Amino acid sequence: MYDKKKGSKPDPKQKRTELSEIGEFGLIDRLTRNIRIKNPETLTGVGDDAAVIDVKGNLMLLSTDLLIEGVHFDLTYMPLKHLGYKAAVVNFSDIAAMNGIPKQITVSIAVSNRFSLEALEELYSGILMACEKYHVDLVGGDTSSSLSGMFISVTVTGEGKKEEIVYRSGAKEGDLICVSGDLGGAYIGLLILEREKHVFKVDPDIQPELHGYEYVLSRQLKPEARTDIRKLLQDLNIIPTAMIDISDGLASEILHICKRSSTGCRLFEEKIPINDETRRLSMDFKLIPSICALNGGEDYELLFTIKQSDYEKIKEVADISVIGHITANNEGAKLVTGDGKMLNLTAQGWDAMKK
Amino acid sequence: MYDKKKGSKPDPKQKRTELSEIGEFGLIDRLTRNIRIKNPETLTGVGDDAAVIDVKGNLMLLSTDLLIEGVHFDLTYMPLKHLGYKAAVVNFSDIAAMNGIPKQITVSIAVSNRFSLEALEELYSGILMACEKYHVDLVGGDTSSSLSGMFISVTVTGEGKKEEIVYRSGAKEGDLICVSGDLGGAYIGLLILEREKHVFKVDPDIQPELHGYEYVLSRQLKPEARTDIRKLLQDLNIIPTAMIDISDGLASEILHICKRSSTGCRLFEEKIPINDETRRLSMDFKLIPSICALNGGEDYELLFTIKQSDYEKIKEVADISVIGHITANNEGAKLVTGDGKMLNLTAQGWDAMKK
Repeated sequence: MYDKKKGSKPDPKQKRTELSEIGEFGLIDRLTRNIRIKNPETLTGVGDDAAVIDVKGNLMLLSTDLLIEGVHFDLTYMPLKHLGYKAAVVNFSDIAAMNGIPKQITVSIAVSNRFSLEALEELYSGILMACEKYHVDLVGGDTSSSLSGMFISVTVTGEGKKEEIVYRSGAKEGDLICVSGDLGGAYIGLLILEREKHVFKVDPDIQPELHGYEYVLSRQLKPEARTDIRKLLQDLNIIPTAMIDISDGLASEILHICKRSSTGCRLFEEKIPINDETRRLSMDFKLIPSICALNGGEDYELLFTIKQSDYEKIKEVADISVIGHITANNEGAKLVTGDGKMLNLTAQGWDAMKK
Repeated sequence: MYDKKKGSKPDPKQKRTELSEIGEFGLIDRLTRNIRIKNPETLTGVGDDAAVIDVKGNLMLLSTDLLIEGVHFDLTYMPLKHLGYKAAVVNFSDIAAMNGIPKQITVSIAVSNRFSLEALEELYSGILMACEKYHVDLVGGDTSSSLSGMFISVTVTGEGKKEEIVYRSGAKEGDLICVSGDLGGAYIGLLILEREKHVFKVDPDIQPELHGYEYVLSRQLKPEARTDIRKLLQDLNIIPTAMIDISDGLASEILHICKRSSTGCRLFEEKIPINDETRRLSMDFKLIPSICALNGGEDYELLFTIKQSDYEKIKEVADISVIGHITANNEGAKLVTGDGKMLNLTAQGWDAMKK
């Protein structure tokens, strides 16, 4: 069972595929292709926002997210309390994306000796603040030292009734594509923070200029999970046919729904909801606002599809925008631009492997 | 909500407590002392091997473990497939320690670009091999790049009937202290591997001398979770009063049971089960075998207490050793040595924060 010659040294004859070649989704596909579900109570495994487990008739949801210093966050502008809040919220968002209710989280943290007890208490105060707001219990975790940097791994459980849980795979031709809130703000917030960091590096005496950026900064630094959408849809008597949360950008997420549902889609650029501040600042950065919405990540809004017959119920809801519809698989995934051009949608969103 | 001046730069007036001062258990105590459980279905949160969640009358267990390169494992002698196997098994062990059945895991991995797709496939093949053996489903996870090293975070769910779940807190004065299998082997295995690594560094042409070390190496490189003990005890009609798995060493674990149960204990050095190979190699390293068992970690055996009246049922079971008994809290935690001395038990086991 143990052969020193193998150890961890690469065999020169062995094939070596760089992770950056295949990207995060390619990697997940490769690593999970040999999984065979053994327990009948495991209803859904890898491939949706959360796994779905049947606990004697009641459905439990399970999801997990990693946040890594230098990859997912930069402590030069991310206060630890906000980081803790965000680490919890992005997990609640995965449960909201299944139309479930987040219930418990475990939090594992590894830090180098550059962090003090007080720093970790600050991080935890943010986690506990999110738990308080979303009525979720922190029930366990693990702590360790790391050789460098901070690693946060959060796992969340949720629950929902069998008839309420919404998968990525249920979209049908003709369904309407909806999105909550507005998009692109978190990405613009990140650009502002990166710019101020650069200014600060050049001259530490310059105070950051953050006035007029409040909205986009809050989108980046203190995102919220749309756990409220479940109740809103319930009150409208709508059950979405498919749903996902927008963590990697609208384009990437709608492609996930299309892939899992074996459909195409048509999105209308002009229908994509974008906040005025986001739009104005996009222009300052010489960026097209809709491109920020399509490819910028971390908005944590919900993207979902509903039956056409539900349109009347939803059309007047201020916080929900209908941005397109589901088409047949062979029609592909398309974006209709403001000037009427039809483009192929491609995912250029966040990929933690390609950074 | 955002103040650049705070950022991540330490305020010189602020108190700074080094994590190494308080250790892993001290850190967990500090970080979790403000937790207030909000959901009635969260029966047990932080403080046992797993959290216990009531899913409408059925109990679900939830636990999580981090494995970090350079802290928990060394890839110069840990083959990736074994690492994957171990990462899964140590989590199954936490569920076994609650007398539950492991059911699902999520696996999150962050790696630097020094790792290839093939390396991660090797790691996953070990995880999936463990899942196969223990009849557990891999249902989700997350992958990311890291700036350096490999980080593995595994979360496991389990189940058990309300009347079967065993906590750390149930030990009563007079209960017998039992342990499965034998102890200290994993620690000696680690010492052998560290010694061979050193030899190899000095002269890479020297082949490692591993003959005669098979047992202790398998204990270190391919531990198993004692999920079989649940059935064994069921067949004997015994429900333990308290239970924990031995990941940090016997002394540390019995102290956890005593603390949570508000009791003392008396362990008998001569009763501690130690394998012949472990004993022989301990002597080669000039170590006292029982000290290796008390303070060496990673054996993943189960430590549990039973009522005295169950003694007759268990005394002939080859794989279970009775090693002491629970005493009143004010009698303290004691070790009776082979020559009849009575020592205070102290935890000197593994502490990921103090390394």
